[in-house]
Amino acid sequence: MNAKHAVVLLSGGLDSATTLAIAREQGYLCHALSFDYGQRHRAELQAADRVATAVGAIEHRTMRIDFAGIGGSALTDTNIAVPEEQQAGIPITYVPARNTVFLSLALGWAEVLNSSDLFMGVNAVDYSGYPDCRPAFIHAFEQLANLATKAGVEGVSQFKVHAPLISLSKAQIIQRGLQLGVDFSQTVSCYQADSEGRACGRCESCRLRREGFAAAGVPDPTRYQAR
Amino acid sequence: MNAKHAVVLLSGGLDSATTLAIAREQGYLCHALSFDYGQRHRAELQAADRVATAVGAIEHRTMRIDFAGIGGSALTDTNIAVPEEQQAGIPITYVPARNTVFLSLALGWAEVLNSSDLFMGVNAVDYSGYPDCRPAFIHAFEQLANLATKAGVEGVSQFKVHAPLISLSKAQIIQRGLQLGVDFSQTVSCYQADSEGRACGRCESCRLRREGFAAAGVPDPTRYQAR
Repeated sequence: MNAKHAVVLLSGGLDSATTLAIAREQGYLCHALSFDYGQRHRAELQAADRVATAVGAIEHRTMRIDFAGIGGSALTDTNIAVPEEQQAGIPITYVPARNTVFLSLALGWAEVLNSSDLFMGVNAVDYSGYPDCRPAFIHAFEQLANLATKAGVEGVSQFKVHAPLISLSKAQIIQRGLQLGVDFSQTVSCYQADSEGRACGRCESCRLRREGFAAAGVPDPTRYQAR
Repeated sequence: MNAKHAVVLLSGGLDSATTLAIAREQGYLCHALSFDYGQRHRAELQAADRVATAVGAIEHRTMRIDFAGIGGSALTDTNIAVPEEQQAGIPITYVPARNTVFLSLALGWAEVLNSSDLFMGVNAVDYSGYPDCRPAFIHAFEQLANLATKAGVEGVSQFKVHAPLISLSKAQIIQRGLQLGVDFSQTVSCYQADSEGRACGRCESCRLRREGFAAAGVPDPTRYQAR
């Protein structure tokens, strides 16, 4: 194929929407991939659908994974509350091995598509302390991908995990997305959004997002739940 | 916890049954993990259930993954025939990134269990040429696991992927399993087993298994389909 194809992880949040827009700007034909993993914030899956269409992915798939079966995170276990205060260390919203699983499935799809480019919106600045959002993790995954796959072993592809947001602040991500025409009102970042996609305004993810809009000096288009 | 816990990938075939028996012999409390990924050979999932009980796993879970949605393999795409002749290179039965996905999910479960030990029955001798069955792949996954996880980053665990069969021939695996009391008549290796778990006798997996029993000098307990 002549056109470059890429698999783009799309959660429906602000970061992944901007990442998709960046991949499009770089000329990739984008296959957007979302995961239904029993997350509390299911409204993000509808957001991902809206964003995939608006930003111009050529297709969008949602794969199911039953993380809920293993528990261990406030995002998938309804017995663990989502914290509303900032916490030290790696937070309870961390989902065990989540990005490893997401990238692995993206890798499988990329291989089928003869694509060697994966995009993901991880960010090591205004992030939540998740270990699988760091550059060393991304690099280790690329190493693995080239050993793990038929395409890598046969030298057809050298897999690259593009993480264009990795060194941007939340405010910079917002500015970049706005330059590329992303409509952030379509995105959902809240860990406990209601079924209409309205944000709680109190969780860690809401806090980072709100502070980002403030620092960027642009209006926050987020729809919040009435309190 | 004082007892050592391990997550053991269990396909229901000969290799993973032996691997589970080895993990048990080493004193691990074994959490067996199987995957329903739309494979043709669904009879292996029933086999995995039988084996988990017989060999003494303390629990057995089957997670669903929709690999079928991405296609690209004779094992998950009913439009691609399972080859019945030996082939050069990496065969069409290769499922893109399969072992990467399986290990990632096993890693997530291990982290929830506070376990740092994963067992998998990959084998680099009488294997089918899959890239994700090689020692270099296993090593790269361990590197990734320690960067990817809360437990790895916080120094709680150093993840180890045990691959006790990696340098054994099929005949040696069979002899080892028999020493440990594995009943191979309960296992299903065939890529296109029928709903009763009877093997075709013609695919690559059947060929390797049959030759293994012959080389081990023990009767082949496999139930074959009538031709």
